[in-house]
Amino acid sequence: MPKIDLAAVPVREGAGYPPPFDAPCAGRTRRRLGNAGGLGDFGVNLMTLPPGGWSSQRHWHSHEDEFVYVLAGELVLVEDAGETMLRPGDCAAFPKNSGDGHHLVNRGTADAVYLEVGSRQPDDLTTCSDIDMMSANADGRFVHKDGTAYD
Amino acid sequence: MPKIDLAAVPVREGAGYPPPFDAPCAGRTRRRLGNAGGLGDFGVNLMTLPPGGWSSQRHWHSHEDEFVYVLAGELVLVEDAGETMLRPGDCAAFPKNSGDGHHLVNRGTADAVYLEVGSRQPDDLTTCSDIDMMSANADGRFVHKDGTAYD
Repeated sequence: MPKIDLAAVPVREGAGYPPPFDAPCAGRTRRRLGNAGGLGDFGVNLMTLPPGGWSSQRHWHSHEDEFVYVLAGELVLVEDAGETMLRPGDCAAFPKNSGDGHHLVNRGTADAVYLEVGSRQPDDLTTCSDIDMMSANADGRFVHKDGTAYD
Repeated sequence: MPKIDLAAVPVREGAGYPPPFDAPCAGRTRRRLGNAGGLGDFGVNLMTLPPGGWSSQRHWHSHEDEFVYVLAGELVLVEDAGETMLRPGDCAAFPKNSGDGHHLVNRGTADAVYLEVGSRQPDDLTTCSDIDMMSANADGRFVHKDGTAYD
């Protein structure tokens, strides 16, 4: 059955960052729709951010394209050049290896809901823009930019 | 600017199938959002089907995963096992090489709008379920299943 049973998709809350970097994303929920449907080439996640919540630490990917489409609420897209408001029906694309970190922040008073799509490349390295943290798909760990571990 | 200017995205109407197979898809429109945002790993298209319209001929992909998310209207998903109604917020996934063809049919009275996401693999072969037609990404031509051309 290709139709995905949303009620059966696990809801993952929060991000796996080391503290205190996990705090702004603590209220974030993710439903892995593509995984639920057996897809391997790319991920499609249904995301919800409560008021005040962040999508992630601001980051960019070395080897993975990313795309977001807003379904409900308001999200502020933050990147090097500044801020852009995204409303339902708005979308944004983040080509790999841009060096320009992005994240979404919910400064509204209602939950914001969006889809995120990303490719899957074993060589990918995620680099954070504003903090000393990176993560390689090879092991999925969040470490300092010199490669040393967070305690 | 990662935000995509929807008003600037070209609107492509209809499918490139040889007649008469193009007729049910003649009113379909496609906006290539991922292309507009400079993405290469996967495509994200904003699709509109008028009442009576089909997404495509019923088909499956050998090497590409596919995913749809309904934004407005009602769509009937048709596959080997039968029909499933999809409404706004519903989604469906089509893993590569299933051998089970799918398409979406708008039997409602209003336009149906959905997102389609697909990976990009040069080796992909699209095989139609109900008609004698296939297409390889290698050349993008729609041909008979024995490889001969349509006139």
